[in-house]
Amino acid sequence: MEEPIVTTLEKNRDRYLKQMIEFLSIPSISSDSTHKADVRRAAEWLANDLKHGGLSHVQILETAGHPVVYADYLTDENKPTVLCYGHYDVQPVDPVDQWQTDPFKPEIRDNIIYGRGTSDDKGQVFMLAKMAETILDATGTLPVNLKFCFEGEEEIGSAHLDDFVDAHLDLLKADVLLVSDTTMLGMDQPAVSYGLRGICGLEVRLRGPKGDLHSGVYGGAVQNTLHAMVELLASLHDHHGRVTVDGFYDQVKPLTKEERKVCETLSDDDVLKKELDVDALYGEEGYPTVARIWSRPTLELNGVYGGFQGEGLKTVIPSTATAKITCRLVPDQDPALIGALLRKHLKDHLPAGVKLEVELMDHADPFIMPVDHPALQAAHNALEKAFHTKAILSRQGGSVPIVNTFHDKLGLAPILMGFGLDSENFHAPNEHFHLKNFDRGLRALTEFLFELSKQMN
Amino acid sequence: MEEPIVTTLEKNRDRYLKQMIEFLSIPSISSDSTHKADVRRAAEWLANDLKHGGLSHVQILETAGHPVVYADYLTDENKPTVLCYGHYDVQPVDPVDQWQTDPFKPEIRDNIIYGRGTSDDKGQVFMLAKMAETILDATGTLPVNLKFCFEGEEEIGSAHLDDFVDAHLDLLKADVLLVSDTTMLGMDQPAVSYGLRGICGLEVRLRGPKGDLHSGVYGGAVQNTLHAMVELLASLHDHHGRVTVDGFYDQVKPLTKEERKVCETLSDDDVLKKELDVDALYGEEGYPTVARIWSRPTLELNGVYGGFQGEGLKTVIPSTATAKITCRLVPDQDPALIGALLRKHLKDHLPAGVKLEVELMDHADPFIMPVDHPALQAAHNALEKAFHTKAILSRQGGSVPIVNTFHDKLGLAPILMGFGLDSENFHAPNEHFHLKNFDRGLRALTEFLFELSKQMN
Repeated sequence: MEEPIVTTLEKNRDRYLKQMIEFLSIPSISSDSTHKADVRRAAEWLANDLKHGGLSHVQILETAGHPVVYADYLTDENKPTVLCYGHYDVQPVDPVDQWQTDPFKPEIRDNIIYGRGTSDDKGQVFMLAKMAETILDATGTLPVNLKFCFEGEEEIGSAHLDDFVDAHLDLLKADVLLVSDTTMLGMDQPAVSYGLRGICGLEVRLRGPKGDLHSGVYGGAVQNTLHAMVELLASLHDHHGRVTVDGFYDQVKPLTKEERKVCETLSDDDVLKKELDVDALYGEEGYPTVARIWSRPTLELNGVYGGFQGEGLKTVIPSTATAKITCRLVPDQDPALIGALLRKHLKDHLPAGVKLEVELMDHADPFIMPVDHPALQAAHNALEKAFHTKAILSRQGGSVPIVNTFHDKLGLAPILMGFGLDSENFHAPNEHFHLKNFDRGLRALTEFLFELSKQMN
Repeated sequence: MEEPIVTTLEKNRDRYLKQMIEFLSIPSISSDSTHKADVRRAAEWLANDLKHGGLSHVQILETAGHPVVYADYLTDENKPTVLCYGHYDVQPVDPVDQWQTDPFKPEIRDNIIYGRGTSDDKGQVFMLAKMAETILDATGTLPVNLKFCFEGEEEIGSAHLDDFVDAHLDLLKADVLLVSDTTMLGMDQPAVSYGLRGICGLEVRLRGPKGDLHSGVYGGAVQNTLHAMVELLASLHDHHGRVTVDGFYDQVKPLTKEERKVCETLSDDDVLKKELDVDALYGEEGYPTVARIWSRPTLELNGVYGGFQGEGLKTVIPSTATAKITCRLVPDQDPALIGALLRKHLKDHLPAGVKLEVELMDHADPFIMPVDHPALQAAHNALEKAFHTKAILSRQGGSVPIVNTFHDKLGLAPILMGFGLDSENFHAPNEHFHLKNFDRGLRALTEFLFELSKQMN
């Protein structure tokens, strides 16, 4: 089937890119209630595009939050069914003054498209839609049964996806889950992920004196909430990058010799230092860099704030201070247990004179999939055809909590075949996506469906 | 002179309060360049008021920043000359949503006036102006020579006051400096201060990776700038509230037995805990609370921030983090030396993987005035007459750097006779000022001029 697909991809490329820019221009920021209508507008755009692409049963299905876009194309019940997942919502854009161009006016420069959602994940959602449209355009049918489930709440923890899946178990029934929301290992090195870290997020608030105080009048007499906060937060790690929360590592399996070897081979500290513009890397002592990302849990401060942030100085002792924390978890860590251990640590290490509030927020289990699934072989073959190089079986440092949802509720084996790059600034200003990987990725996705129909027939 | 003054104060009270509200309504925030015209408007209002009050040579004198308001009333060169200092600029009002009423629409409730600048320092500047107007109204002259120097840059470190004083040494020549920018020891306990802490302020910035990173993709591999910041800031104190910067206490004189006794007597920890709504006070171990405020130096975090501050979580490793720090200094600490020691400490304790920037900002020497000056006795007598209780000779935890300026350049002995209360939220939301102390304070100020002409004739 190679020739007609390649020809069709080439023929449609300009139109696809114009459509992608239209889709990316909708500011579908799910965390910001002022953008609620925009999120729905993105769902409607996507539904409309799927309809024009030849999909059936296109629907916008309501949840208690932002809606889910569903579509399918059922060709033969004896063929495997692939459920494609992605999310059409995006991260906020602050600090917006650090964007070189408007995050919602996507621009193509040097075959790279810049804008919020280009790589995470609207760009890749769009590729899944065009995967189907391309094959239908070229051949008039699909080699497998296909279903789409695109949600609008991934960036806010997929709050209503569990309920949604529970309510639509029949509709979503499939054999394989295809997710394009992960990254490649490098510009020319595709990967299929078989493991993801989990997550446990919390917000920590300290309250000291009932209002902000003048540091001249009260300084020395009363606990400074920020002193308490930095002392408390500093207690979470030792000086070797290790998390000091009691029991934090108890469920973590030690690295096998083989895993360590793979991680050592894949770690290129000099390249990473250059990419990030830092003099030194840093992390848990005794582990190669890639192992620290794939196989070791972390505890990261994502935001800390309290007191005066304006220009110059203000001699204030702040009444409150806040920290936002997320842990990345590995098998077999339990997010609920980790949350409880953290809460205990914070309570036990609380400095005098302040009150503590801990709010547990997002959480997701870590995940490892069986490596002998035929869909993995199909993905491997498809990537090799598109990239002219062998794909690496990898793990991911990030979390795709929905993988657990679809695995636990529908028994789906997930294929995490993503085309972003770690360096493409997702969740940060100047997010971008290499169109070279748009082209090769779209080629790989179409090929995956043909390979899958061979491997799973 | 008692009767006519008291009568005049009563007669004029309503008019004075209306005028004070007018003055306080001008948002003269000196640190905010968008309020530049408002700062000048406050200066013009004040100049106009002094003119109507009977003062001579009223002028708005330019500096490289906000202007100084000058006025005088020279009655007899054989009498002492008092230079009155205050500042008509105010602090910013953020967080503005925590104000119960508009900071620039002053309201009187239960004989307390609420609004930015009510106690620090526009309310008290206004009292100095009305001190002169009242005596002139009641007696047609003044018992001493009087000069006013009201600046508009105290809240931004009096950046141009040194130059201003240098340029106007003759104009500002006097015997005594009268400052109403300090606090009483309690609602019914007036104080005259003979000591002030100095200040040394700095901003600390850490830079990690070149941009914000996704914590799933990079978490564990690279230093988190916020981890480095909390570790660095936590290193500034030990667990007993003591500053750990090498040499920080080297110039600090130990407390004398007498000082310790006074501080012990004046410390009422239970009252302070209740006032601040905290379970425990906190500070350098081994010193009574009042000694920690008056006689011991501090290092306070006034603001710390980095990363995500919005609602919910954002899995980001921030590229930068910032801390704003001020030290309160006591005799004989040198702000420049302390700044250098701090810079060295920060450099020596810098965690791996981040770059450090330290910017030294505000600084002022600590100050102790000779306790045998006749003006101190005059202040003591005046306060006793107005408050019907003996005033306490106290020190202040805060800094009034201009005291050093006027002492060093003009040899003036400062009388720090303030009528604010520590609990009146200056530098914070819902700043207020008790009108009971407005009345008694105004009475004390007028009496001070008569007492001074007796003590220093």
